[in-house]
Amino acid sequence: MRLRHKPWALDYMKEQASIYIADPATLKGNWAEEFKNEHPLYIEVGSGKGAFITGMAKQHPDINFIAIELFESVAVAIVQKLVEEPLPNVRVLTVDAKDLRDFFEKGEVTRVYLNFSDPWPKSRHAKRRLTYKTFLATYEDILPEQGQIHFKTDNRKLFESSLMTMSAYGMTFDWMSLDLHVNEPEDNVRTEYEERFSALGQPIYRMEATYGK
Amino acid sequence: MRLRHKPWALDYMKEQASIYIADPATLKGNWAEEFKNEHPLYIEVGSGKGAFITGMAKQHPDINFIAIELFESVAVAIVQKLVEEPLPNVRVLTVDAKDLRDFFEKGEVTRVYLNFSDPWPKSRHAKRRLTYKTFLATYEDILPEQGQIHFKTDNRKLFESSLMTMSAYGMTFDWMSLDLHVNEPEDNVRTEYEERFSALGQPIYRMEATYGK
Ligand SMILES: C[S@@+](CC[C@H](N)C(=O)[O-])C[C@H]1O[C@@H](n2cnc3c(N)ncnc32)[C@H](O)[C@@H]1O
Ligand SMILES: C[S@@+](CC[C@H](N)C(=O)[O-])C[C@H]1O[C@@H](n2cnc3c(N)ncnc32)[C@H](O)[C@@H]1O
Repeated sequence: MRLRHKPWALDYMKEQASIYIADPATLKGNWAEEFKNEHPLYIEVGSGKGAFITGMAKQHPDINFIAIELFESVAVAIVQKLVEEPLPNVRVLTVDAKDLRDFFEKGEVTRVYLNFSDPWPKSRHAKRRLTYKTFLATYEDILPEQGQIHFKTDNRKLFESSLMTMSAYGMTFDWMSLDLHVNEPEDNVRTEYEERFSALGQPIYRMEATYGK
Repeated sequence: MRLRHKPWALDYMKEQASIYIADPATLKGNWAEEFKNEHPLYIEVGSGKGAFITGMAKQHPDINFIAIELFESVAVAIVQKLVEEPLPNVRVLTVDAKDLRDFFEKGEVTRVYLNFSDPWPKSRHAKRRLTYKTFLATYEDILPEQGQIHFKTDNRKLFESSLMTMSAYGMTFDWMSLDLHVNEPEDNVRTEYEERFSALGQPIYRMEATYGK
């Protein structure tokens, strides 16, 4: 993600209080109230500019979605999309994935999406990968029993290491494609990175993984 | 594997009693006696014409190897290779993978290799894939605790389904490549199919999977 500092981003987002949640810890355990319904809650960790989460939210009006994006200067693009085309079932948070337990109760999140996460190719940075065991433990703590992670990436090494860390964590793979755009599922919503990399002809890898058996 | 019937194959192999084991059930629990040493025993299931197992046996003289190949008309090519270039640490069996328990005690086999196994692409044939759960249970019954399967293939769908059946069986992936011939490991021994398919530029998939965590 190219990072251009946007000093106005936070103020702009804070003005959109129906979209951007500036203090999400206050809503821990109360997300159903915020959305004013009891629909399942799917979160995407590392949403970038939000092509995936806005596409998914349109496709699934009966699901609530939360975009988690570390950088305000990136997340602001999601908020802008939602100002132009309002979607009542989306909220945006600028928080760090490692702190998810501060914002969600156990079982409050039904599914976690990881899309084209930063690969951190050097082994000394393995702990920073969003599928490292400490992150898997964090997601487990906000998901129900048998909760799921849906993960796609173009990065072969990241996918390989994720297959290893997730299987070592006791997770089961229920869905797997090692070349997603051959017979692309009709309901696949492409992310910005996915659109860019598919043009280069590299395979896109995708899995659905469940905690436990 | 192109199958040309070779009516002379069985008689020819039986004459090579130091290579071909015509009645392997009699050696169940006694393979160390047959090899006259206590070295670890690795088996390959579906060996084809034996390029892999003979290459491995040369590279690892302190390991015993058994080639398991269903068809006599195919296995005879392995025996012929071994007649031309004798390797004291290799034996050849023409038996069906589903019957492995009849030939090996629990723990008698240290590692199972599966190379370019028949893909059986139709879902109604899923049970015939050598990584279907019934086969995983068979290998488990001849391997020690924490026993390993090393598996490679060019077939994407077979590899995908194996990731799913093996994770559902509780196995852990300790080594993974989704494009083996990019940075091919120096000690990789290519099979006949591997040589053929790598020329086509398709990725070769390879994993090492352990029973349990
Ligand atoms: C490579 S981009 C992919 C963006 C988008 N998912 C896509 O597929 O186009 C990864 C994104 O994850 C965000 N990110 C990285 N680490 C994060 C963390 N610990 N918590 C939240 N977001 C993170 C980055 O800021 C970046 O926007
Ligand atoms: C596609 S070929 C691959 C041969 C070799 N491993 C290679 O990589 O070149 C698969 C082989 O597995 C053998 N095979 C298939 N099912 C088997 C079974 N149930 N037991 C033993 N061998 C089997 C076939 O006869 C065939 O020779």
